[in-house]
Amino acid sequence: VARRLRPFGTTIFTEMSALAQRTGAINLGQGFPDEDGPAELVEAAAEALRSGHNQYAPLGGVPELRVAIAGHQRRRYGLEVDPDDGVQVTFGATEAIAAALLGLLEPGEAVVALDPTYDSYGAAVALAGGELRRVTLRAPAFALDLGALEAAVRGVGAAGARQEARVLLLNSPHNPTGRVLSRTELEGVARICVEHDLIAITDEVYEHLVFDGAEHIPLATLPGMADRTLTISSAGKAFSFTGWKIGWCSGPPELVAAARAAKQFLTFAGGTPLQHAVARGLDDAERHTAPLAARLQANRDRLAAGLRAAGFAVAHSEGTYFINADAAPLGVADAAAWCRELPARAGIVAIPASAFHADPATAPTLVRFAFCKRPQVIDEAVARLARI
Amino acid sequence: VARRLRPFGTTIFTEMSALAQRTGAINLGQGFPDEDGPAELVEAAAEALRSGHNQYAPLGGVPELRVAIAGHQRRRYGLEVDPDDGVQVTFGATEAIAAALLGLLEPGEAVVALDPTYDSYGAAVALAGGELRRVTLRAPAFALDLGALEAAVRGVGAAGARQEARVLLLNSPHNPTGRVLSRTELEGVARICVEHDLIAITDEVYEHLVFDGAEHIPLATLPGMADRTLTISSAGKAFSFTGWKIGWCSGPPELVAAARAAKQFLTFAGGTPLQHAVARGLDDAERHTAPLAARLQANRDRLAAGLRAAGFAVAHSEGTYFINADAAPLGVADAAAWCRELPARAGIVAIPASAFHADPATAPTLVRFAFCKRPQVIDEAVARLARI
Ligand SMILES: CSCCC(=O)C(=O)O
Ligand SMILES: CSCCC(=O)C(=O)O
Repeated sequence: VARRLRPFGTTIFTEMSALAQRTGAINLGQGFPDEDGPAELVEAAAEALRSGHNQYAPLGGVPELRVAIAGHQRRRYGLEVDPDDGVQVTFGATEAIAAALLGLLEPGEAVVALDPTYDSYGAAVALAGGELRRVTLRAPAFALDLGALEAAVRGVGAAGARQEARVLLLNSPHNPTGRVLSRTELEGVARICVEHDLIAITDEVYEHLVFDGAEHIPLATLPGMADRTLTISSAGKAFSFTGWKIGWCSGPPELVAAARAAKQFLTFAGGTPLQHAVARGLDDAERHTAPLAARLQANRDRLAAGLRAAGFAVAHSEGTYFINADAAPLGVADAAAWCRELPARAGIVAIPASAFHADPATAPTLVRFAFCKRPQVIDEAVARLARI
Repeated sequence: VARRLRPFGTTIFTEMSALAQRTGAINLGQGFPDEDGPAELVEAAAEALRSGHNQYAPLGGVPELRVAIAGHQRRRYGLEVDPDDGVQVTFGATEAIAAALLGLLEPGEAVVALDPTYDSYGAAVALAGGELRRVTLRAPAFALDLGALEAAVRGVGAAGARQEARVLLLNSPHNPTGRVLSRTELEGVARICVEHDLIAITDEVYEHLVFDGAEHIPLATLPGMADRTLTISSAGKAFSFTGWKIGWCSGPPELVAAARAAKQFLTFAGGTPLQHAVARGLDDAERHTAPLAARLQANRDRLAAGLRAAGFAVAHSEGTYFINADAAPLGVADAAAWCRELPARAGIVAIPASAFHADPATAPTLVRFAFCKRPQVIDEAVARLARI
């Protein structure tokens, strides 16, 4: 394996899902729903298959989907993007992130991201020859320290020359913490981006999956940001079809063009029948996503209560599929080791938060649990946790 | 756009398909069939959608497909690959190539490929920070000069230090020329690979689409090659579903692991319902591919006759979707300019071979035509060519 990829091994998701499969444990590790999304979108995909939408898509994506994405951004957020030059369909948000970084970064340029960091970011930055700098969010509040963000952008404390970062790679709702950044935090982020002339790449795959009436605010909607932000989302999370791998990025044509320039040589363009189905879903997204968010919120509450009853110190989750719980009160010192024993001991798979941190010692006893599962599965998991 | 991608612009396929759409011309440019593959595979995909195969696939691909790929390689070619560690499903052959190069190459290492070169190869090598060296196949015979291949591997004539190449990236059946390398040529290639300890990455997406009883010989089947060859193929070409973007690579675990290491961070894993359908197709591939190859051969003959009647000097095509024709006898000096006028003049889109050559002057008057179209479309194209 090439040197640039050696530090990254196999994704934690693959490792933990394999463990779940081997042990028959309940998989609260990798974030994927155990119920598919709306039957009408399954039927739309089947219909697209049967009506001959089976050849290459145009490079940007099928026109119906690009128009639906632009319409969604306009209706929901007041963001104007051009359906031709301002939208690029990708194989999931993961490809959008990889393509954007490969298409934008020059070797040695720095990217700032939040720590804990979604697992593909570091590898994608490395593939692009960039340098990743991280700004730590600490449990249980996971508040964003804007001073630390600005220092990371300026390269204070970074090894070597203090080169200013070129890109901010932000995710909110934030996986793995479940934080949804507040308007105040985002205003601070926007100010830093403008002052330091950063390009922002935002991973907003959980844009619809926020709880308790919280508001998801795309960074692109803040002053000065529309022209410098590439916004990424995906149908996997919005509609519970993670295996379709239909994602996209949208924003100013120059940023979309950079992602497209790389994307065309990573995978060219396809998933054509599924793109047609997602276009249907996005035309009326909230009809599908609002009930899903409500179900997820109820699941979160069920799981949080169970974790608390089992003795964990539970962090609040404002969105995503995930909730984090500190196992220290249970006498756990090393959550990574503990998580590897959990399937045998309790029939549950969960992911140690340390897997997402640059320094595993930042959150040695924190565990991420996924609650994107049927209520009866959550209940069974809670019952098992009670017996730990 | 990042510097490493700037030389590559937008793929010629996107440019020429857009031209076809704008002008309403018959698109004999980008290679995709205008009829979908077997209805039973469409139904298999619809069934997979309805029976809940809609979440992330395991990283390697769904087990049914990995087993089907291994079975296909064994039955058809006597190649043994492990369905777990020896197979990786990808979003098309394009992703397999990009992932293999990103997963294997260290910056500065050299890759040797045939010239004309399929359009993503150069960009994928550049993304991996490698150096591409090309060995020219010349019309009309497109014979492989083994001496030139060995010289390229050794770096004779290359700029800078004469570092030996590390990877051979070979495609046979060869797009864009339609050549199918002979056993004698492949034996020579294998000898060079073994002598120079090369890794071979072979793009065999047209493995089933060979004509006149020609034999497709995977490089991996030649002496000394099984342990050093990563073999790539795809369902797009085998079953006429280019928009499904289900491809794969197979071979020794170390090479598959390298491709997988990169692939997991490019797109993770998906296309799940389509993977299930492709597994069905591969269980009995020849039942689908033999009639397709026969239809394509008849189309090739129709188009070749029409091109000849119109005055072109037509090269023989032994496989793929493509045939090349020299427009020099028609008084054409610059096929690239001529192809851009062809839609307006004759209602046909075709691709200048120079788009695939490092040096456009290698084949300034050659034109690639795709014949993966319905017979009546080929006939109409032939009628239009007759009026040039
Ligand atoms: C790419 S598989 C991981 C799914 C996910 O987003 C998560 O578990 O964090
Ligand atoms: C990736 S689109 C190009 C299709 C094709 O293989 C070709 O036309 O050569």
